[in-house]
Amino acid sequence: MPINKVEISTLPPGHGNHKEDSPFLSTSDSASKRSDYYDKNLALFEEELDIRPKVSSLLSRLVSYTNVTQGAKEHEEAESADASRRQSPNMGTLMGVYLPCLQNIFGVILFLRLTWIVGTAGVVQSFLIVLMCCSCTMLTAISMSAIATNGVVPAGGAYFMISRSLGPEFGGAVGLCFYLGTTFAAAMYILGAIEIFLKYLIPQAAIFHPADIHAGSGAMLNNMRVYGTICLSLMAVVVFVGVKYVNKLASLFLACVIISIVSIYAGAVKSIFHPPEFPICMLGNRTLSRDLFDVCGKTVVVGNDTVPSQLWKNFCSSENSSSAHCDEYFLHNNVTEIQGIPGLASGIIKENLWGDYMEKGQILEKASLPSVDVHGSMETFGFYVSADIATSFTLLVGIFFPSATGIMAGSNRSGDLRDAQKSIPIGTILAITTTSLVYFSSVVLFGACIEGVVLRDKFGDAVNKNLVVGTLSWPSPWVIVIGSFFSTVGAGLQSLTGAPRLLQAIAKDNIIPFLRVRDLLIYDRKKIYQMNTPHLFSPWCFSSLQYQFEFFLMCYLFVNLACAVQTLLRTPNWRPRFRYYHWALSFLGMSMCLALMFISSWYYAIVAMGIAGMIYKYIEYQGAEKEWGDGIRGLSLSAARYSLLRLEAGPPHTKNWRPQLLVLLKLDEDLHVKYPRMLTFASQLKAGKGLTIVGSVIQGNFLECYGETQASEQAIKNMMEIERVKGFCQVVVASKVREGIAHLIQSCGLGGMKHNTVVMGWPYGWRQSEDPRAWKTFINTVRCTTAAHLALMVPKNVSFYPSNHERFSDGYIDVWWIVHDGGMLMLLPFLLKQHKVWRKCKMRIFTVAQMDDNSIQMKKDLATFLYQLRLEAEVEVVEMLVKDRHSLIRMGSLYSDEEEETIEVLPEKNQMTWTSEKMEAERRNRNNAPENFRELISIKPDQSNVRRMHTAVKLNEVIVNRSHDARLVLLNMPGPPRNQEGDENYMEFLEVLTEGLERVLLVRGGGREVITIYS
Amino acid sequence: MPINKVEISTLPPGHGNHKEDSPFLSTSDSASKRSDYYDKNLALFEEELDIRPKVSSLLSRLVSYTNVTQGAKEHEEAESADASRRQSPNMGTLMGVYLPCLQNIFGVILFLRLTWIVGTAGVVQSFLIVLMCCSCTMLTAISMSAIATNGVVPAGGAYFMISRSLGPEFGGAVGLCFYLGTTFAAAMYILGAIEIFLKYLIPQAAIFHPADIHAGSGAMLNNMRVYGTICLSLMAVVVFVGVKYVNKLASLFLACVIISIVSIYAGAVKSIFHPPEFPICMLGNRTLSRDLFDVCGKTVVVGNDTVPSQLWKNFCSSENSSSAHCDEYFLHNNVTEIQGIPGLASGIIKENLWGDYMEKGQILEKASLPSVDVHGSMETFGFYVSADIATSFTLLVGIFFPSATGIMAGSNRSGDLRDAQKSIPIGTILAITTTSLVYFSSVVLFGACIEGVVLRDKFGDAVNKNLVVGTLSWPSPWVIVIGSFFSTVGAGLQSLTGAPRLLQAIAKDNIIPFLRVRDLLIYDRKKIYQMNTPHLFSPWCFSSLQYQFEFFLMCYLFVNLACAVQTLLRTPNWRPRFRYYHWALSFLGMSMCLALMFISSWYYAIVAMGIAGMIYKYIEYQGAEKEWGDGIRGLSLSAARYSLLRLEAGPPHTKNWRPQLLVLLKLDEDLHVKYPRMLTFASQLKAGKGLTIVGSVIQGNFLECYGETQASEQAIKNMMEIERVKGFCQVVVASKVREGIAHLIQSCGLGGMKHNTVVMGWPYGWRQSEDPRAWKTFINTVRCTTAAHLALMVPKNVSFYPSNHERFSDGYIDVWWIVHDGGMLMLLPFLLKQHKVWRKCKMRIFTVAQMDDNSIQMKKDLATFLYQLRLEAEVEVVEMLVKDRHSLIRMGSLYSDEEEETIEVLPEKNQMTWTSEKMEAERRNRNNAPENFRELISIKPDQSNVRRMHTAVKLNEVIVNRSHDARLVLLNMPGPPRNQEGDENYMEFLEVLTEGLERVLLVRGGGREVITIYS
Repeated sequence: MPINKVEISTLPPGHGNHKEDSPFLSTSDSASKRSDYYDKNLALFEEELDIRPKVSSLLSRLVSYTNVTQGAKEHEEAESADASRRQSPNMGTLMGVYLPCLQNIFGVILFLRLTWIVGTAGVVQSFLIVLMCCSCTMLTAISMSAIATNGVVPAGGAYFMISRSLGPEFGGAVGLCFYLGTTFAAAMYILGAIEIFLKYLIPQAAIFHPADIHAGSGAMLNNMRVYGTICLSLMAVVVFVGVKYVNKLASLFLACVIISIVSIYAGAVKSIFHPPEFPICMLGNRTLSRDLFDVCGKTVVVGNDTVPSQLWKNFCSSENSSSAHCDEYFLHNNVTEIQGIPGLASGIIKENLWGDYMEKGQILEKASLPSVDVHGSMETFGFYVSADIATSFTLLVGIFFPSATGIMAGSNRSGDLRDAQKSIPIGTILAITTTSLVYFSSVVLFGACIEGVVLRDKFGDAVNKNLVVGTLSWPSPWVIVIGSFFSTVGAGLQSLTGAPRLLQAIAKDNIIPFLRVRDLLIYDRKKIYQMNTPHLFSPWCFSSLQYQFEFFLMCYLFVNLACAVQTLLRTPNWRPRFRYYHWALSFLGMSMCLALMFISSWYYAIVAMGIAGMIYKYIEYQGAEKEWGDGIRGLSLSAARYSLLRLEAGPPHTKNWRPQLLVLLKLDEDLHVKYPRMLTFASQLKAGKGLTIVGSVIQGNFLECYGETQASEQAIKNMMEIERVKGFCQVVVASKVREGIAHLIQSCGLGGMKHNTVVMGWPYGWRQSEDPRAWKTFINTVRCTTAAHLALMVPKNVSFYPSNHERFSDGYIDVWWIVHDGGMLMLLPFLLKQHKVWRKCKMRIFTVAQMDDNSIQMKKDLATFLYQLRLEAEVEVVEMLVKDRHSLIRMGSLYSDEEEETIEVLPEKNQMTWTSEKMEAERRNRNNAPENFRELISIKPDQSNVRRMHTAVKLNEVIVNRSHDARLVLLNMPGPPRNQEGDENYMEFLEVLTEGLERVLLVRGGGREVITIYS
Repeated sequence: MPINKVEISTLPPGHGNHKEDSPFLSTSDSASKRSDYYDKNLALFEEELDIRPKVSSLLSRLVSYTNVTQGAKEHEEAESADASRRQSPNMGTLMGVYLPCLQNIFGVILFLRLTWIVGTAGVVQSFLIVLMCCSCTMLTAISMSAIATNGVVPAGGAYFMISRSLGPEFGGAVGLCFYLGTTFAAAMYILGAIEIFLKYLIPQAAIFHPADIHAGSGAMLNNMRVYGTICLSLMAVVVFVGVKYVNKLASLFLACVIISIVSIYAGAVKSIFHPPEFPICMLGNRTLSRDLFDVCGKTVVVGNDTVPSQLWKNFCSSENSSSAHCDEYFLHNNVTEIQGIPGLASGIIKENLWGDYMEKGQILEKASLPSVDVHGSMETFGFYVSADIATSFTLLVGIFFPSATGIMAGSNRSGDLRDAQKSIPIGTILAITTTSLVYFSSVVLFGACIEGVVLRDKFGDAVNKNLVVGTLSWPSPWVIVIGSFFSTVGAGLQSLTGAPRLLQAIAKDNIIPFLRVRDLLIYDRKKIYQMNTPHLFSPWCFSSLQYQFEFFLMCYLFVNLACAVQTLLRTPNWRPRFRYYHWALSFLGMSMCLALMFISSWYYAIVAMGIAGMIYKYIEYQGAEKEWGDGIRGLSLSAARYSLLRLEAGPPHTKNWRPQLLVLLKLDEDLHVKYPRMLTFASQLKAGKGLTIVGSVIQGNFLECYGETQASEQAIKNMMEIERVKGFCQVVVASKVREGIAHLIQSCGLGGMKHNTVVMGWPYGWRQSEDPRAWKTFINTVRCTTAAHLALMVPKNVSFYPSNHERFSDGYIDVWWIVHDGGMLMLLPFLLKQHKVWRKCKMRIFTVAQMDDNSIQMKKDLATFLYQLRLEAEVEVVEMLVKDRHSLIRMGSLYSDEEEETIEVLPEKNQMTWTSEKMEAERRNRNNAPENFRELISIKPDQSNVRRMHTAVKLNEVIVNRSHDARLVLLNMPGPPRNQEGDENYMEFLEVLTEGLERVLLVRGGGREVITIYS
């Protein structure tokens, strides 16, 4: 037996479409070893042991299987080709998860923007911002841990988790978005690195220089383009040379970050005793931009002269101190110098507790300084430090949030981890805890050490273009500058190595056709970087960094969603080893992700969702035929169950009545549908909506007929597909067909979704057949439907009914409304007319006026009634007076009033006839053979039967006369006789009643109202 | 027969919970006239005619009913008391719908804000704004028309439509919000009227005056409070005196509006030939506020002296023209005067085509004028006309939208309309068309006639505080001022009369308990106004006018939703006489409403939705027991159908396997559940999730047992409620119980929601019973489940199973894993442990090692396997070696290896025994009566049976030995013998196997994997 490779298949061969087969042994495999199982000890189970594995033999194979590298079989197979090239996964929690997470989470924001956030929002609100972002990621990490410990997680991380929990569509969409986000993140890191490089490290290296102080962004962008290309090329080289170098470099870079952070703490501590010297020059309470003058004062003493300083020259029109026209604000306010870093002991934190949100262009002011409130001219505003954008709490949240992302860095390496299920939760949660603590303490330290105007000074204009956080650090600002530069480069490298790995995992699953490139399946870094590169340097990339966070947040959202859904659905398979999750936490995390998405920018959020939605639809449209057992199926199940239970709460209102059909089909000997037009009719009646159950009965013994049942169900389903009937199929095996039908009528449907109407074929050959079962089954079914309070429809001559491709371009659907048993007769033509076939038919309603009826009033009333019902129909009242012999004669009847008691009808044994000439002949025939009919009704030759037959004949005459050219005639179906003896007569009545009509639908109401005039 | 009042009830007495009964006749009513129906002509249908009305007699009664005042019966009844006081509904389309709509739609916005909107957004974008808002209301009107023409619409308008289409919860929530919106609207109209009154009509009337020019809002607010109270009191008097006066006043007010609009058109036409004189004074390109100076020039000539003008004094520090220190901008720019209304022929429209969105405080500038670009000092900014708020496209949409609302004014009067179904669509759509045309033309005319800076001048500061639109009108601005004042007052009156009518309609439906005040049910205007009044003058009202539009929009949204849902669901009852609707239009309208809600202000939108949500939940919680046949039921049906069809697509993945139970219950003679603990066990196993179908069989003939079926279904449902089993119940009638069970197994469930596991009780008395059917039914069911590939669970001694209230605080659930038939044995304890009863039990897995097994390795393997499955369980491997005679003896067995061939088991006739002492005794007994057993197996005394019995005895010993103190023992159930002759032996084996155990669950897998190590 192979150790690393086990033959795997599920036990019954019919369940072959599970791609991830279970790790149990197949029958065929063990059949040869049957002798093993005939162990005397377990003789009681010997029949099971024939087909099922014994526990002991199973276990030994099982464990050798599960010792194989973690990973779904699919992944294994795909990778087995170059397995030799791959190193076995051997990374631990520290190197594999904790450190990568740490490095990804710490980023540019901590060094470049956190001081500014603390200054603008104040310590308290900054704390809140950090808390929000960190708790969002922490909640996501908890959800992720639960998913990651619920079974094997091979490569693919977040993508794998989402796709296996929520299905390939969601997985693919979110995975691809996450890939894009990671790519964008790499771009952001590179840009951050260049910003540090050009602004703080070597400003001389800038190639393009701003034309004037107010227009710096254009030149900066060009610089970034050039250096970005260089930087990316360098990184690509590093990555191309080898991932192991990246990992080695990563450690180096991470060391830089840690040193930087330590130097901040050291600086803070040092500031207690010996705060660093960073003086800021203030004019009144306004902060002056330091780089545009030298001495902080209105005058300088050169030799013995007091001459105007550089500052003076900036604000006044001439150097002459007396005659010059100076800015009003400059004139009225003094120049002072204050300490930029008062230090931890100074109590500056009191000033920084509450925020100072600024408008765009607002000058940074220190409220506690004295100032004469003059506006001053606008021209001088360039000399002050001013806000470059308007700020608000939500904006700051959006700016800070990116520094909490990166928590997937560990789980995305799941393929390289020794024990992913252990390392991911511990590593990720520890990394988040560490970084959160650093952020929280930094917020407090910054607020406690640094002067407010310096904090709010985004680009360090007041401190000589120094990095603000660098001014605090000890021993030197350069530690921070260099540290943050390397940290950023390192994070960029991490993203660049992570992104293609993600893409590869998606491509391997074969769910996205345009990724189904053979090359991608090989772990070919070069190709994938070539794919990545254009993203980075396309011009739109620079403006769409925002998408990165939206994509990340979307991914987090779906991780939370997957966890919440699975917890709430309580799938038996949801047994995470990580226990500290709760659906409420996941739900909270989900809400926070959604809120953050919209807070940071609602339009980007919508666009990002739109992109994800399109990918989803694309994958769905491409028909990803993956069955990974996603939670969506569980959702469907829950939805179905909930809806059905809800439906069951009460009987439906008349307004909501719609025919829910149970179509009883007859199968022929080869298990084919005998009258497919029954299904055609059903599909035309439903026009795609509501419930249709197709039932059929196989005569036999259930224990032996399982195969037959399956086959006929398949046959019926195929026919349903052809006839476009959306619905369910139910074939039962019964010893008698009659009993089977009775059971179908009783037990089809579920909960609130039960049929209320039975559609049954006419037993065409009943007269010819020697076997009385043919019509006994029919009448029994009619009785059953009545007993079960169901409506009944019997389409007669169903083979003449139109197919779904025919289109009636004119003609009528005629309703003969004789008894009102719920209004179904009126509703059916309306429903049929929803279908293309019948759309152009018109509806006519005939009703029968009798002796004492005022037929003119009746017609008027009927028209009003139909108006109220919002039905369009022609209305006709047919007078059928027994007394009016002339009319009967006019209608072609040959027998007179006197013959009424001895009415004669011939039980026809020949075929149906459809021409009126033939009918005439028939009728004449009947006259000639009255004995025959008497014989028939001699079973119980009472008055009632005679009267019934009389009605049937007369009604038939009237109907044929008026509706012979109708496309369809709907007719009340009389009820079967109370005692079974009259059954054969009843069949005869029905034949007579419908004779000479091409398509007849006999309708029997279920005893409740189905149509109403109310809305 | 009464003409106006007809006895109404549905036909079968069982369907009594429809509040809106159908207008058909009851049986009892027509029973006395049975003789009528025995008409010879319709003898065929005489049985139907016994219980169902004949068409002719039905019709005559029907029409006299439908001639009664429109309105649901409920409404009629409530109102019948004071019917005499009420005038019959007699309003036509023009007076009842068109004019009220017109008046409600035209409002303050047209006169007060449209010029400003045109100026700010430009003609093109204003056109777009108007188009958006008007098309939103037009789409809503289309949806509303469809709903209104789908049956009778009594009083209540929008509320009635939504509640009858989407249910009482939605209806109540939206209706109440709409009521609030209408109340707020009244407040808005009153405030608008006061603004016009105080600003343009009689500014002298102001009681409070602003302290300085920059702080006008506080005083204005106080003025509004005082005048608002006065105005409302006046209106209340008018309304209280009589609605008919309101209607008469309304016509007067509407005339004012129309005259105003005509005067605008007239003014526009006149401006072609003779534009009105409204000069505007400009400094540079800045607009000067006209009311702070007299002459538009830097100097004035008084006599022969050129002296500084008022304007000069404003901008300069002293009157001395030479030495004064003047504002820089004033110094460098010239004062010019331009024409405010250049007129239609001037081509000014080119300048006004594109908008000029302003920041707050930005000065209105005319770009085409020359200007020296100096900033000037801030102190002088008060002399210019500046924007009071920052504007954007979305803000303007939010400001304009209210002037498109009011489209419900007609439909809310549905109770007073002669033919609501005709009037509502025509009147509403015509009114919207009219107003839209007026708005579109106004936008163009304003843009074409008026100077841009005047348009952007919100309060007419540049034109001497005139109403800007008034400056255009002809013959006098006063026409507009007075017209707009009366228009506003009129609309306020309309709202005040409309709101209580709406509240009354809601209160009548009794769905909101706090409205269930008896007084409200009387048409008592006074009371309702007292209720309205506090809303109007509570301080928060002034700040929450925004909610009005949110509420209106929400109402529109739901009208659209109701139309879309009903169209998409294709309810047969959805047959609107208005044909020009489409679900896509409704959907578009819905989306626009939602978009507008969020565009105008997203936080108000969320709050409004929150309020509506709370009302919804309140109504739901109060349990509105209204069944109006809402569309939600149709949605449930569609959802259920869709989910079931989706589920059917493929067999579920192993990951998603969960037991879907079919619990077979036995009923006793009184149709009570015999073993309710079966349901308890099912509920514990499901813990509220997944499918449970409870099936039972009644022996008999279906045609006669309908009542019995219903009764037993009810009994089972009650028991299910008690035992908290959420699921479905299915009772079938069959001639043989065995057949009934076979049918249940075959045909329960629907589509993808089929049972996969059968739970069946043990046939306890089978040994005592003479009737072999007791155990034959059992074995047959076992065979059926096997044939249908279902799993089977047989809880033995189910009466000893814990109730739902018990809590096991310790103990074990023991699994005896002998054959692996899908892993169900391992899954079941996990599922049980989800329930409170079993939560604290621990799981133990025993497996049996045999001769050649390495039991230490097996234990290790099993532990690994369970780790992979994420199941926590103790693992034990029990060695059961035949060779090891000592162990057998140690376990208390008395018979040796040699006895194996003639093993003796006594068929016990006495009760089960549970102590091991008793068991010992039993076993000894058996030894004494070996003949008995031989007799038993003499049916087919083959080796196999002997071996089986041997296994049973030995296994039982091992199990009892290890698991005698377990809370529950799970055990593989051996399969039944292939040929039926061994059936009785089989029963005996099972008895022996499970003997001496308190609670045993025999489990037989369905032949497919149910547990997996994958996530």
